[in-house]
Amino acid sequence: MNPNENAPGAGNPPDTSLDQLRAQIDSIDQQLVELLARRRAVVEQVVQFKQQHALATHHPAREENLISTRRAQAAAAGLDPDYVEDLFRTVLRHSRVGQLETLGRRGARPGARVLIVGGRGSMGRFFGRWFRQSDYEVRVLDREDWPQVQSLAAGIDLCLLAVPIDVTPDVAVQIGPHLPAGCVLADITSLKRQPLAAMLRAHAGPVVGLHPLFGPATSTMDKQIVVVNPGRHPDQCQWVLDQLVLWGNVLVETSAEDHDEIMGIVQSLRHFATFAFGQFLCSRGVPILRTLELSSPIYRLELAMVGRLFAQDPSLYAEIIFATPERRALLKEFIESMNSLVAMVEQGDKADFVRRFHKVAGWFGPFSEQAMRESTFLVDKLVHRF
Amino acid sequence: MNPNENAPGAGNPPDTSLDQLRAQIDSIDQQLVELLARRRAVVEQVVQFKQQHALATHHPAREENLISTRRAQAAAAGLDPDYVEDLFRTVLRHSRVGQLETLGRRGARPGARVLIVGGRGSMGRFFGRWFRQSDYEVRVLDREDWPQVQSLAAGIDLCLLAVPIDVTPDVAVQIGPHLPAGCVLADITSLKRQPLAAMLRAHAGPVVGLHPLFGPATSTMDKQIVVVNPGRHPDQCQWVLDQLVLWGNVLVETSAEDHDEIMGIVQSLRHFATFAFGQFLCSRGVPILRTLELSSPIYRLELAMVGRLFAQDPSLYAEIIFATPERRALLKEFIESMNSLVAMVEQGDKADFVRRFHKVAGWFGPFSEQAMRESTFLVDKLVHRF
Repeated sequence: MNPNENAPGAGNPPDTSLDQLRAQIDSIDQQLVELLARRRAVVEQVVQFKQQHALATHHPAREENLISTRRAQAAAAGLDPDYVEDLFRTVLRHSRVGQLETLGRRGARPGARVLIVGGRGSMGRFFGRWFRQSDYEVRVLDREDWPQVQSLAAGIDLCLLAVPIDVTPDVAVQIGPHLPAGCVLADITSLKRQPLAAMLRAHAGPVVGLHPLFGPATSTMDKQIVVVNPGRHPDQCQWVLDQLVLWGNVLVETSAEDHDEIMGIVQSLRHFATFAFGQFLCSRGVPILRTLELSSPIYRLELAMVGRLFAQDPSLYAEIIFATPERRALLKEFIESMNSLVAMVEQGDKADFVRRFHKVAGWFGPFSEQAMRESTFLVDKLVHRF
Repeated sequence: MNPNENAPGAGNPPDTSLDQLRAQIDSIDQQLVELLARRRAVVEQVVQFKQQHALATHHPAREENLISTRRAQAAAAGLDPDYVEDLFRTVLRHSRVGQLETLGRRGARPGARVLIVGGRGSMGRFFGRWFRQSDYEVRVLDREDWPQVQSLAAGIDLCLLAVPIDVTPDVAVQIGPHLPAGCVLADITSLKRQPLAAMLRAHAGPVVGLHPLFGPATSTMDKQIVVVNPGRHPDQCQWVLDQLVLWGNVLVETSAEDHDEIMGIVQSLRHFATFAFGQFLCSRGVPILRTLELSSPIYRLELAMVGRLFAQDPSLYAEIIFATPERRALLKEFIESMNSLVAMVEQGDKADFVRRFHKVAGWFGPFSEQAMRESTFLVDKLVHRF
């Protein structure tokens, strides 16, 4: 009952007064949680309503309007509007995720038949779960099921390839002849040019390439990005994309060529650089925990990005990093560019460093400032959380 | 007045009902902000009380107790306790920062005389402001003020060296003979061994090395780390450390030798690796904004860490990166370790990659899992904020 257990005993007048103020704060906090529970109850009614009337889960304009109203109220009450916005962004996200738990189960084409090739792998199982809970009929074709391919592929509406990158084109060729004419053929590999070309050759019907930018450990699809490469008959593929949007995904459309070039940078190069850094820390036997004690939050965050990589599946990273000759050439170029810095390092040439720095800073342009803002926001979160 | 401006007109029964639910949500949100404003008002009374009775700003046990109570209430009301904790951590941090704005002004030894050498540089001005608002008498000695050193140093209680790393030892030698016997001599450079040794030689009285792990753009000292290297007469230095704690800093004590070794990794190596990556992106002309569109939040975060570097002062980074022969040797070793990966890259040797990966993962140990948790938490914040 005493909100201030660590204070000296009661009877001390100053502390009694502090106790009273703290009791007031506790009462306000209790009311805050009560309001949050009431809010949740009303949101649940909204969800039921949206479900009955088949309305969209997200309503970005309503969210921004709500934030603006609360910011204005905060400013009028002498509160920091950024602080209040921060709180309401958390409330809204929680509300969206809660709505998706129910509304995200809706099917764009419930009852349609989905065959997941590689359906016993981690991503195959992941998509199997999502399709099943949206009332699709899900069938699985894994390595040992090829003798039954004829019956498994009969009458299907979507064939989703969820096999490793290096076998995806071959599997497309194998499954192609068994697909009904109107069946959508799609894949989810992280490289798109070859698989898309193979799918277009293997199947004369609708084709679309998909690259979900998230792994099988993802608990919510809320705002998760899926890259979409149109293949053939986009109108007939539309229901598959609609389903992703219902689940909460954000779709970004590119050509397969653009996708692969950009992903070479985003995935291969970045992961390789992180790997190389982690390996160097290991080879030097750097005392990680001691460095964390002596670290600014920004280093803590950077080290978390490195450590994170090594908590994951190395064969997946090997596939991504070494996927194509272009990627391997890019990585070699990266190592060579490091070598071009040796003279500067040996001589401790600060003037050379500053000159190079200005060139890069000019090239980054306004992105640097944006990066500063975003990372400062996150560092702030890190400081008060851990 | 209409909380749902984007919906079709009124008169439509479904939307009227949705409008009513949304009006209920708006009313709850309004009450939430009213409660936050009332909470702030009570916290201000707590601050006044603490100021009158010279009580500590932070009360970690009270904070954890408060969080536990609200988590329990949330669980009982069917709300996700993590969600409610997340909100209250934001509320508490805001409250702490608000309290520091007032309480952080308290002086541990108000009226004492502080001489800031390099007081017109950015960190010198920064500390000058903080000392002044805590009622110290602040004097400034910059390059042009040496003729007045005698009068400036007369009767001072603290001499704080806030000059660039490379001149700090010399400046310590110069100022030493002018300091009163009981005056604390301290520095704030990011390398500690040489400056601390120079200060100990230059002054027979109390000496302490400080390394604030934050820059002059920091708006709050809340939970910011300052590394402390004890030099001489720690009891006589204590009031300076007390002042940092009053401002909200967290102190971490090390030897100067440990500090410098660890900072070689934390600062020099990490910043250099980030610089090298940014320079390579620039040399390749990578379309940054396009890669961001096609990126998972984790890449967005990694790129933000790179962009962030280039929004800052290159000469400061040059000082840090190339500070000592040991650091330059470390960086060269890092480049060499990258070269040892060339064969693996050229041959796309996935087995070699997986073998190396497992070794590093084993060495990182439980830190990888922790890194995964922390970075996932932050990525979540990034997704819903930007």
